[in-house]
Amino acid sequence: MEHTICPKFDKATQILGKPWIGLIINQLLAGPKRFHTLETEIKISGRVLSVRLKELVELGLIHREVFPEVPLRVEYSLTPKGKSLSPVMKSIADWSDQWIELE
Amino acid sequence: MEHTICPKFDKATQILGKPWIGLIINQLLAGPKRFHTLETEIKISGRVLSVRLKELVELGLIHREVFPEVPLRVEYSLTPKGKSLSPVMKSIADWSDQWIELE
Repeated sequence: MEHTICPKFDKATQILGKPWIGLIINQLLAGPKRFHTLETEIKISGRVLSVRLKELVELGLIHREVFPEVPLRVEYSLTPKGKSLSPVMKSIADWSDQWIELE
Repeated sequence: MEHTICPKFDKATQILGKPWIGLIINQLLAGPKRFHTLETEIKISGRVLSVRLKELVELGLIHREVFPEVPLRVEYSLTPKGKSLSPVMKSIADWSDQWIELE
């Protein structure tokens, strides 16, 4: 596909380019996590995280599971579609490591 | 870096997520191209393409070369930084091919 126009490719870059999406997926590649853990690790406001997680569930990239405990435990994990982003995340990490400079 | 927070990674996904950026880079992976060729291949308005190309030059991803011919010939090509996005483009293409559905 490298040199043809592909709307699927365009859609994928739009998903990955949304703020925090890449970081959230990256964190979940380590395994399922609770809302609060993600909030702390990514240093993101709870409100923004909540919106992004909802989007990721809608996109079929993550799965939300509620455990009927007291207090209620809610865990997020990657779906197969989300897990298969691992090589994409890896290639972006490698590239940014080598080429991106921070101001 | 997979499970740590990296601002370089975040910056990279923000660049790749801008509309058309991925598609323009993909087209230039085939070799240097003139403005009009890109315009036709990507089916993008000249005004938008012009803005995106300027951004890509500023990001150091593409190089703009003017050939003093009549009429003036302007060619765009990938810099080493831009060319090294090839594995990223490939991994996104593979993933989107398998997982993205178009409405």
